[in-house]
Amino acid sequence: MTLFSKIIAGQIDSYKIYEDDLTFAFLDIHPHTLGHTLVIPKIEVGDFSDLPENYMLAIFKNAQKLSKAIQKATGSQRVGLLIHGMGVPDHFHLHLIPMHTAGDLNDSKAHPESPEKMEEVREKIVEALTQ
Amino acid sequence: MTLFSKIIAGQIDSYKIYEDDLTFAFLDIHPHTLGHTLVIPKIEVGDFSDLPENYMLAIFKNAQKLSKAIQKATGSQRVGLLIHGMGVPDHFHLHLIPMHTAGDLNDSKAHPESPEKMEEVREKIVEALTQ
Repeated sequence: MTLFSKIIAGQIDSYKIYEDDLTFAFLDIHPHTLGHTLVIPKIEVGDFSDLPENYMLAIFKNAQKLSKAIQKATGSQRVGLLIHGMGVPDHFHLHLIPMHTAGDLNDSKAHPESPEKMEEVREKIVEALTQ
Repeated sequence: MTLFSKIIAGQIDSYKIYEDDLTFAFLDIHPHTLGHTLVIPKIEVGDFSDLPENYMLAIFKNAQKLSKAIQKATGSQRVGLLIHGMGVPDHFHLHLIPMHTAGDLNDSKAHPESPEKMEEVREKIVEALTQ
């Protein structure tokens, strides 16, 4: 069972943003910027190129809605998308990163944030998502 | 007319990799690593979150095939995906970047390559795509 499957199953706590039959979204605990979100499929596929079509479509359709909500909640200029699979190579994950500057996509920006700030931005994104 | 629409129309030369009714793919002339490819829709939409569903599905389905071909042609460890829209903000473009190290996704890696090397990798990717 991958780390992310344990998060989906609730065996590991997460700052959950969204869930449906095929996908799950939650805050990255080492955000490049506050509001950095991961979208994952509910199957253990490592590589982007091996994702089944229904999962792929669900992930990117949800990513469109999530991007708008994240941009609204964080006031960022844009939301960047990133897939590299380096951290958890056995479970595909799409990074949605609020960009205030072009450099915000760089891995060197990754840092922890306080639980209070994480919960605050989580609530803002969830609220923006339901509007 | 955006820069990328001019490339699609053939008004500006490009190292073309692939084309169908909805999408176009070609080499980035400032690659992070050799083989760095852009996939674009044949409509002028700036933001990822505004892409119509049929274009989005076509782009990411083609990106799956292109990623495999790029990995095979370049011998890279993985192919990273990146969307930030900073260079050409008025026409969506998906970066497919051959990753030899984690840092290869960083913008600071962008550099020109010789026409000979670009044409050589273009031919390799096109060949891998048809196998």
